[in-house]
Amino acid sequence: MKLGTLRHAIDHKPVAEDFTIIEAERPACSEDGLVVRVVHLSLDPYVGSRLRGRHMGEPAPTPMEGAIPGAVIGQVVESRASKFAEGDWVHVMEGGWQEFIAIPSAHARKIDPKVAPLAAHAGVLGMPGLTAWSGISQLAKVGNGDTVLVDAAAGPVGGTVGQIARIKGADRVVGIAGGPEKCSLVTETYGFDACIDYKAEGWRDRLADALPDGLSVFFENVSADMAMLALTHARTYARGVLCGLVDAYHTETQSQHPLNAGLIIGKRAQLFGLVVYDFYPRWDEYVAEAAPWIASGQLKFSEDRADGLENAPALFERLMNGQNKGKAVVTVSAEQV
Amino acid sequence: MKLGTLRHAIDHKPVAEDFTIIEAERPACSEDGLVVRVVHLSLDPYVGSRLRGRHMGEPAPTPMEGAIPGAVIGQVVESRASKFAEGDWVHVMEGGWQEFIAIPSAHARKIDPKVAPLAAHAGVLGMPGLTAWSGISQLAKVGNGDTVLVDAAAGPVGGTVGQIARIKGADRVVGIAGGPEKCSLVTETYGFDACIDYKAEGWRDRLADALPDGLSVFFENVSADMAMLALTHARTYARGVLCGLVDAYHTETQSQHPLNAGLIIGKRAQLFGLVVYDFYPRWDEYVAEAAPWIASGQLKFSEDRADGLENAPALFERLMNGQNKGKAVVTVSAEQV
Repeated sequence: MKLGTLRHAIDHKPVAEDFTIIEAERPACSEDGLVVRVVHLSLDPYVGSRLRGRHMGEPAPTPMEGAIPGAVIGQVVESRASKFAEGDWVHVMEGGWQEFIAIPSAHARKIDPKVAPLAAHAGVLGMPGLTAWSGISQLAKVGNGDTVLVDAAAGPVGGTVGQIARIKGADRVVGIAGGPEKCSLVTETYGFDACIDYKAEGWRDRLADALPDGLSVFFENVSADMAMLALTHARTYARGVLCGLVDAYHTETQSQHPLNAGLIIGKRAQLFGLVVYDFYPRWDEYVAEAAPWIASGQLKFSEDRADGLENAPALFERLMNGQNKGKAVVTVSAEQV
Repeated sequence: MKLGTLRHAIDHKPVAEDFTIIEAERPACSEDGLVVRVVHLSLDPYVGSRLRGRHMGEPAPTPMEGAIPGAVIGQVVESRASKFAEGDWVHVMEGGWQEFIAIPSAHARKIDPKVAPLAAHAGVLGMPGLTAWSGISQLAKVGNGDTVLVDAAAGPVGGTVGQIARIKGADRVVGIAGGPEKCSLVTETYGFDACIDYKAEGWRDRLADALPDGLSVFFENVSADMAMLALTHARTYARGVLCGLVDAYHTETQSQHPLNAGLIIGKRAQLFGLVVYDFYPRWDEYVAEAAPWIASGQLKFSEDRADGLENAPALFERLMNGQNKGKAVVTVSAEQV
């Protein structure tokens, strides 16, 4: 079977040439384990950081041997666990770039292929969607009257943040994204009230214009500087979710990500550090709540698909450069066999 | 009557010579106003910052004319307001260094002279105590199982923070203070489990030793650096109250007070900016809860008293240098006349 791995150890933002697809043995099922045929593979920014050994202490894979890590959607083809049967559909967070994976059954979360398109479980119903829901409805507890700002708003986290905020009752939802194409995805498809293109001149003024009464909630994906910009537009008692610092994943020096404590106090802000791992036990609850929103058209998503593992490296490079439009998903094999 | 004012405009940490006591006309009662004979005057660190025009945008008093601002405890000697009568005891946050003050009645909060010693309304039942209660019981919601760290622990905010945390069920309360005398006040009088003297060598190691299982709540009075030190000792899901940045009140350059966003996320911390003004409407509720703790000996306080307005400048200088032992209070006139 095919397996995607690092060609060599890296200490830079990964590019397509850093990856290679090799032939590997199909792995064997362990006791209480499963073998899963991988159908969709999720490509996510944190993996770029992890390949450099920078993500939450998790190790980079061994070059020319270990699979690139990544969440997958697939079908059980062999089960030695009582709770899973052949043919079950599962989501596996600790998956990887390979056509078949062997995992302990505790790593698999059963999914219902009927509630939404299968690949949605990699994005809007997957880790990015769960992240958005955790921050908006569990930490910041967005409701009626809130004005919400989110950056990286065209991405699968940011786009879902704004839409869930709206569903939960927010009055106004404003995004920040890079370039007119992403901004029109944010306003036209995701239905935000406004999206500010941070690559355009005068964008800080336009952000102020888009928040005439300030914001009550911000969801930060990019950097401490952006969080502080959000806080300057905050009403008193604003809540802020600190979710990601994507800008720093590939900087050459590891920064301190400084937030201004004086501004936090002056605004009486409440800040919440969010790590989505903590919400994995509530994934089914999220899917049960969000799948009907997708069915009814309240919650939209966008995908950037590649077909076949051999096309994963190029899509990963596009993702690293922010050139993807929507959730990056690699279809590794056909849904129906 | 006597009135304490600035001798000249200042842009440095105030010293005794910056103040002067002048003779001024006793102010007249306005419509719906009161005249209050000042008995106790509270000296607080934020006033030092305000005299330089640095506190929350509030103006410094005019030299040789305006009274130094300060909260006072006093007795109504003239009332044109229906809710107050001559002889009523009041606490006035917007008071000042003068023997009599004329105020709108809305600025007075009636106090019961029987629930605690009168001067306690300047400290443990005054703004410092309300600050401690707001952060510990309203924002961080300290309860059973919590381990709480607070700095400036010998001060009227910090000392009350630890004691209220204990009353609310905290398992372990650790303070940080400067010097052995302050540390013994914290452990012996306030009953903290440990107090670390930050002026002693190796204190960071001793802090680690004092928090073998980490902390679940920190209450920050001093600086962003201290908040980050607290966060390195935090368990995941720790709550932090950002209350004051006293270290920066008199620095020559206005710093950004940087907090590390990466650490906040990694710890899944929740941070709360606290400005005690927001809790003024709940002052009576706090006093009703805390006065019995004082009566029963659960909540202790310590005072550094000066007698007469003419001794306020020297005590203010000691306060600015952290040489006060307990709440700085100036007794301006006798309780009984």
